[in-house]
Amino acid sequence: VVLIVGAGRGIGAAVAKRFARGGYHVVLVRRSDSAQLKASVCEIEAMGGRATGFLMDATTASSSSSSTYNENNNQDPLESLIDKIETTVGPVHVAVYNLGAQIGSRRLQETSRKQFELGWKLGTFGLFRLAKYLLPRMAARSGGSLLVTSSTAAMRGDMGQASHAAAMGGRQRLCQALHAEYARHNVHIAHIVIDSPVDSPDTLGKLLGDEHFDKLRQDFQTKRGGLVDPKAVAGLYWYLHHQPPSTWTFELDLRSRGDMPWWSSSRL
Amino acid sequence: VVLIVGAGRGIGAAVAKRFARGGYHVVLVRRSDSAQLKASVCEIEAMGGRATGFLMDATTASSSSSSTYNENNNQDPLESLIDKIETTVGPVHVAVYNLGAQIGSRRLQETSRKQFELGWKLGTFGLFRLAKYLLPRMAARSGGSLLVTSSTAAMRGDMGQASHAAAMGGRQRLCQALHAEYARHNVHIAHIVIDSPVDSPDTLGKLLGDEHFDKLRQDFQTKRGGLVDPKAVAGLYWYLHHQPPSTWTFELDLRSRGDMPWWSSSRL
Amino acid sequence: VVLIVGAGRGIGAAVAKRFARGGYHVVLVRRSDSAQLKASVCEIEAMGGRATGFLMDATTASSSSSSTYNENNNQDPLESLIDKIETTVGPVHVAVYNLGAQIGSRRLQETSRKQFELGWKLGTFGLFRLAKYLLPRMAARSGGSLLVTSSTAAMRGDMGQASHAAAMGGRQRLCQALHAEYARHNVHIAHIVIDSPVDSPDTLGKLLGDEHFDKLRQDFQTKRGGLVDPKAVAGLYWYLHHQPPSTWTFELDLRSRGDMPWWSSSRL
Amino acid sequence: VVLIVGAGRGIGAAVAKRFARGGYHVVLVRRSDSAQLKASVCEIEAMGGRATGFLMDATTASSSSSSTYNENNNQDPLESLIDKIETTVGPVHVAVYNLGAQIGSRRLQETSRKQFELGWKLGTFGLFRLAKYLLPRMAARSGGSLLVTSSTAAMRGDMGQASHAAAMGGRQRLCQALHAEYARHNVHIAHIVIDSPVDSPDTLGKLLGDEHFDKLRQDFQTKRGGLVDPKAVAGLYWYLHHQPPSTWTFELDLRSRGDMPWWSSSRL
Repeated sequence: VVLIVGAGRGIGAAVAKRFARGGYHVVLVRRSDSAQLKASVCEIEAMGGRATGFLMDATTASSSSSSTYNENNNQDPLESLIDKIETTVGPVHVAVYNLGAQIGSRRLQETSRKQFELGWKLGTFGLFRLAKYLLPRMAARSGGSLLVTSSTAAMRGDMGQASHAAAMGGRQRLCQALHAEYARHNVHIAHIVIDSPVDSPDTLGKLLGDEHFDKLRQDFQTKRGGLVDPKAVAGLYWYLHHQPPSTWTFELDLRSRGDMPWWSSSRL
Repeated sequence: VVLIVGAGRGIGAAVAKRFARGGYHVVLVRRSDSAQLKASVCEIEAMGGRATGFLMDATTASSSSSSTYNENNNQDPLESLIDKIETTVGPVHVAVYNLGAQIGSRRLQETSRKQFELGWKLGTFGLFRLAKYLLPRMAARSGGSLLVTSSTAAMRGDMGQASHAAAMGGRQRLCQALHAEYARHNVHIAHIVIDSPVDSPDTLGKLLGDEHFDKLRQDFQTKRGGLVDPKAVAGLYWYLHHQPPSTWTFELDLRSRGDMPWWSSSRL
Repeated sequence: VVLIVGAGRGIGAAVAKRFARGGYHVVLVRRSDSAQLKASVCEIEAMGGRATGFLMDATTASSSSSSTYNENNNQDPLESLIDKIETTVGPVHVAVYNLGAQIGSRRLQETSRKQFELGWKLGTFGLFRLAKYLLPRMAARSGGSLLVTSSTAAMRGDMGQASHAAAMGGRQRLCQALHAEYARHNVHIAHIVIDSPVDSPDTLGKLLGDEHFDKLRQDFQTKRGGLVDPKAVAGLYWYLHHQPPSTWTFELDLRSRGDMPWWSSSRL
Repeated sequence: VVLIVGAGRGIGAAVAKRFARGGYHVVLVRRSDSAQLKASVCEIEAMGGRATGFLMDATTASSSSSSTYNENNNQDPLESLIDKIETTVGPVHVAVYNLGAQIGSRRLQETSRKQFELGWKLGTFGLFRLAKYLLPRMAARSGGSLLVTSSTAAMRGDMGQASHAAAMGGRQRLCQALHAEYARHNVHIAHIVIDSPVDSPDTLGKLLGDEHFDKLRQDFQTKRGGLVDPKAVAGLYWYLHHQPPSTWTFELDLRSRGDMPWWSSSRL
């Protein structure tokens, strides 16, 4: 069983197909758009794979200030869904945390507290909750993998990125702490830094709008090797999950050939 | 006016005295212990300085899910206190964000959601709120400084540090984003990475208990140059605030002579 | 054609076999031990692959102070060998720079200038010479890959590592500069950080001696997932070379499951 | 006694004056221009300080391939000069390594082996030789400081920076290794990353030519807080040397207010 949290039409769907083709039962989880979710499930079943889809909002949690606050959390959507999946589908071998926290470039003054908090819930807290609920189980079973999609903002905070960078910076350090504790228990944590725009209609497409997205895609196609290809990312996730325990990768970057890396002074 | 958020008896108090001696009106803010707060204010007044103290919990905020959620936030303790300070004491020239988020070494399973959330509020969100409320004002006035105390966990996540590292990693990336946006507006942001234990009774002292703290202090005194000295840190903050705009430091580390840095394979 | 500079019995030989199996003509280059070199070539031919072997010392170069100094360098062993390979075997599509610069842990005072200089020649200068001679050709042809084996010391200097860390730190920055200039010309540079000991008799085996090496191997096998497996590294190099240009990795780490990463405070 | 290797009219001269004012006997060392050297010495003596000047080329060393190779090196200019200084002036308490390795932006193909080697000698090897010759003595005496001027290229390799980045990357890792070994022996190593252009006629001025240098200076003055001020850098070196051993800084950055840091996506 592979669990994909953030199963949009970009990386999420591509990873789902890759693991389905490899014989995994794929559990797709996304926040909204049940039509799209069903379409993804059908597509996998049509190619002979097994898939189940759920709508779930990973940011919903009983607040610590609320009277119903429940530290066991098994009433909260994310945690109760994991219970349900492990009971009805089977133990999760691979978890892919694929929720982004990008809200575009936004000046500090224009970044609301609500956005900043949501960024943290998507970027850091949701991953913490998933890890806390799943990793001890993986460790107690035969092991497993937690593959975390990440981004440029995990490596440095830049202009207009206060919310995104805080969220993703927290994500990177959290992944390091998870690795330090769980790698020895045969749980492979990987932090994948995607440092170029992804060819993903559900995230970048919506952020930019159709016209700008098409223009960007055209521009990258012509001059930079193309936007990051979700299929290639999916192939990488498959590869990482199959690394032998003597030779594990924790962190790596991905970018388009002609795009400059985050540590370089100029992006073309 | 220098505002110190997190004015305990360690770095906070030392910075307060240093700036008071330099002629600043010092505003000390801490969450609890009004007796200690008064003592700090009196001590500064006794040396001929000006000081005002407030008790305030920087983690209290109307929740985004609450019906009273107020994006302007001027009802929340942190924001309303800043308003009050600027009205009654004067415009804040220097802000020192000195709240830690350390909860000791704690395995993932033993880290509660409540702790993780509190870590974020102390480590990241409180700084975001302070910055969002103050930096535009500093930029609109003659400029200013935001000096942020930080720690090893800001540089990497390690075993037992899931909450702390996520909080401080978010803090570092946030500081970078603030620097990228506000340095050009003459607001000096500095991220000070304290990579050794601090000789601070209110934080490390309480975390370890008196006996262990004394033993650690003795050990560092004998073999490693001593625990990090709050007075020396205060001297550094004074120094950073006075760097000319052509020659600003954004990030630096501090550690005891004999203590190994975070990027080294062994701490003695 | 894949050129492997540093074709010992560990990673070099494994990469050679992987690419030979994939249809490449493999050119193996090592400094000494022609018997071992012939054995490697024979082994590849026995499995139906094509291979050629050369003995060559990549550190030999006409000195800048010598009267025979020749900036075109085509008289020097490395450069003239590349000419010979491209003429007699064919254009190099993939270059693997696999020379280490490890001399074990050695205090500053015990590190001779000769060792330090040799470290630089192996770690940095040899790669510069290879890149300068090959990359413009790759760029002018259909593109290519330069895969660089690297190590912990590339990420930080530690006790006893003055020579090694200076050499590998230079290597990492050089790889970044090469990437910044040549990725856009369709030359894929990858910097592979091997952060655990490798199961390699020619390097680690010789450094430790048979007895210690066997003990280390046993220890890793039992508790940490094993020493880094050259075959797995070879699989990675094959994978990296075949990433599509929209989705290239520049840097990644590799380590044994139970070994702590360089940025962690304790190695088990 | 403070020894300044690389005592040009920028940072070197400013550091010299600062330490002379603080009562140190300053030893100025530069490769060429004895008139300028004498002028620097006179200026310090005129302000009541003590100074001695030497011309010396730190890159000159008996080659390891030469028959006169001498591992003790006390015949080589750098090492024999240190002997001479310690005999005639006194034990060196503070060493400032201020040699740059910048050759401007240069494509890989246009970077000669000679330049690359010279870059390494200035950037890395000279520092290694100085450290190896001086640090054991400092450790055996009361301690001391080694303050190393460094640059953006120490933090990442960029387009056109193959030589410079390899040299300075090696320098940074070497400083880390020196720190890991010698901090415990009361020798304070500091790696100062200057991430903006310096107002220095002997280095940047010569690199750019008078006209471009004046234009850059004007531009920075108007919009970015000015070029990095050698006097402010000198103040920092003085500050670092006087940090108490409980509270040492190993690494920090310096840049003009309006200049974007190396980790940011755009430099203004």
